[in-house]
Amino acid sequence: MRLSIDKEQFLKGLAVASKAIGGKSPDPLLSNLKLNLNEKGLEITGTSKEITIKALVPYRVGEKEVIRAYGLGSALVNAKLLTEEVRLMEGAELSLEIIDECIAKIDDGRSSIRLNCVKASEFADIDLEPNGVILTLPASDLIQAIEQSAFAASNKEQRPILTAVNLEAGNGILTATATDSARLARKTINIDSDARFVCNVPAKTLVDVSRLFEGVDRVTLAVSESSILFLFENIVVCSRLVSGNFPVSRTIIPLTFNYFLEVNAQELLSAMSRASLISAERDSVVKLSMSEEEVQVSARGEQTGSALESIRTFQYTGERLDVSFNSAFVVDAIKALKTEDVRLCFQAEMKPFVVQNPKDDSVIELVTPMRTY
Amino acid sequence: MRLSIDKEQFLKGLAVASKAIGGKSPDPLLSNLKLNLNEKGLEITGTSKEITIKALVPYRVGEKEVIRAYGLGSALVNAKLLTEEVRLMEGAELSLEIIDECIAKIDDGRSSIRLNCVKASEFADIDLEPNGVILTLPASDLIQAIEQSAFAASNKEQRPILTAVNLEAGNGILTATATDSARLARKTINIDSDARFVCNVPAKTLVDVSRLFEGVDRVTLAVSESSILFLFENIVVCSRLVSGNFPVSRTIIPLTFNYFLEVNAQELLSAMSRASLISAERDSVVKLSMSEEEVQVSARGEQTGSALESIRTFQYTGERLDVSFNSAFVVDAIKALKTEDVRLCFQAEMKPFVVQNPKDDSVIELVTPMRTY
Repeated sequence: MRLSIDKEQFLKGLAVASKAIGGKSPDPLLSNLKLNLNEKGLEITGTSKEITIKALVPYRVGEKEVIRAYGLGSALVNAKLLTEEVRLMEGAELSLEIIDECIAKIDDGRSSIRLNCVKASEFADIDLEPNGVILTLPASDLIQAIEQSAFAASNKEQRPILTAVNLEAGNGILTATATDSARLARKTINIDSDARFVCNVPAKTLVDVSRLFEGVDRVTLAVSESSILFLFENIVVCSRLVSGNFPVSRTIIPLTFNYFLEVNAQELLSAMSRASLISAERDSVVKLSMSEEEVQVSARGEQTGSALESIRTFQYTGERLDVSFNSAFVVDAIKALKTEDVRLCFQAEMKPFVVQNPKDDSVIELVTPMRTY
Repeated sequence: MRLSIDKEQFLKGLAVASKAIGGKSPDPLLSNLKLNLNEKGLEITGTSKEITIKALVPYRVGEKEVIRAYGLGSALVNAKLLTEEVRLMEGAELSLEIIDECIAKIDDGRSSIRLNCVKASEFADIDLEPNGVILTLPASDLIQAIEQSAFAASNKEQRPILTAVNLEAGNGILTATATDSARLARKTINIDSDARFVCNVPAKTLVDVSRLFEGVDRVTLAVSESSILFLFENIVVCSRLVSGNFPVSRTIIPLTFNYFLEVNAQELLSAMSRASLISAERDSVVKLSMSEEEVQVSARGEQTGSALESIRTFQYTGERLDVSFNSAFVVDAIKALKTEDVRLCFQAEMKPFVVQNPKDDSVIELVTPMRTY
């Protein structure tokens, strides 16, 4: 393998594929990127056990020649070292050559770097050809579905299924649901497709993948038995799926409520931020005390003291009600809604309540209260 | 104690005094700030075993009333909680009251925060009155003396004296010297004073203190047997001194050299940054190979590979010479010089060499080579 390549395009490909590579893996091979120069361009692939990312640097981008090939081939090179060296090199064009399958030589005329490398055949082959159910949708819709659901997934490995976002397509709708069992978030988007599938994608992976969508127009999903592919521009991402049944039914979300609070999102967030500092020692629990006359947020801590916050602008319908909850859950929910005003709908003091955007019912956030002190 | 206070000025004082408070101290009292409202204003004091900082928020700043006092007094309040709550409060003016010596109540009309607090008498009194030898000098001179010396101090506690910067005043000169025994940095500044003292100040403290000098005109030092005070604007900082004799004599710096390299600082830094990645596994050692025809930087790593860098613009005087060294030492030295061109002066392959600004001999950086591979 021998080529010359535009430094910026090379670096972009390296950066994308490197995102698959986590911290220290027990398998040192996984700290490598696979470089493969073929008739499509330079394919750069990184993988962990969770996720595989392949970025293609094409021969041309528009009018501009990006790669000039003098010999096809492939090799495995340490991801971090290669990326850092390329980043630090000063030439706009680099030459890259694999010598005797064991040295990757990178040169810009001033710097000459030789990195030890490994035969590409040492890398387990991962199938990145799309098969299974195919669904193409606007990247912005998928980003929103992820942003408004994934935060509610669990980050504890005890129940792996709760670390996933449940994606369900059918009847022209894609629903993304996540829950850590104390709260739940669900976003529904319309899809222009009769695709039908259910799968559970690790929430962390989904968030990482959505960060690659910036500036992307459309994304294609390919859902098979054990994996999901995301195909967009010159990138393919493959994530494993979490097996098992997602433990949430459509009926978990209550439909009738007795108390309604509508309030400026920023004002409620500010009040909760001050109050929750006080109760940091006990899960940042805060109490919302509501009546038609006044709405207050309060918190107490054994070590710290107490906080009492008055909400100035609100609309409340219902009897007097006190509800205590982990403030982080409500903060996350409000932030995910990205709305100016927020509506909270309660059934009773100790029943799950809903946080929603009064103007958009495609997303619903459910929070379980904590026992009032 | 009861007062109303301008939020921004209060926060500024809290932020400064909090810098004395480190991470988790075994003594929970040290996580508090002492608030003391007296005839000068609100004194806010934080302390650790290493350093004490007192910031005064005065009654007036220029024309502006900052504090209105309704009752003098003092108390200890948790630094982090108080600072965070004040930062998050929305009013421009806060009222602060100590109730029954055990509650600090902060109120801006919307938020009412009550923090548990402790009697001020629980705090060990630290003498912040200047005594000993007094020296006043421009803050910018002191900043430069610290920046160009402290980085060379050791960060290992085995030999405490090497974690200090040695400050020596006399004959109208202040010299700051630091060494970790493999490298040394010394900066000399002229002082308009006949003050005479020698003391060893922990380098980390000195760097932290110098960050408080931003926008400050002049700083007064007061050096006594066991501590040094820094007095500037409304702030007093007290640092303990490291006892013992600083193990560096004036004669440690060689005066005659046989080889001289003058080179663009940025070009040498860039070449070393790429090469040192390769040798990260072995102390980032790089080799500088110099002759009148060419200058190269190279590095090798068992696991990684090799790098060879050509320096394009240089002036070299002397026979052919190869010198290997820990690149971080030379990078630190060059960065501290803040100069466009840098001169390296060598005696021999294995003798300490000097890194200096060709246009300024007030600062000298000495580096011990490593054995060439």
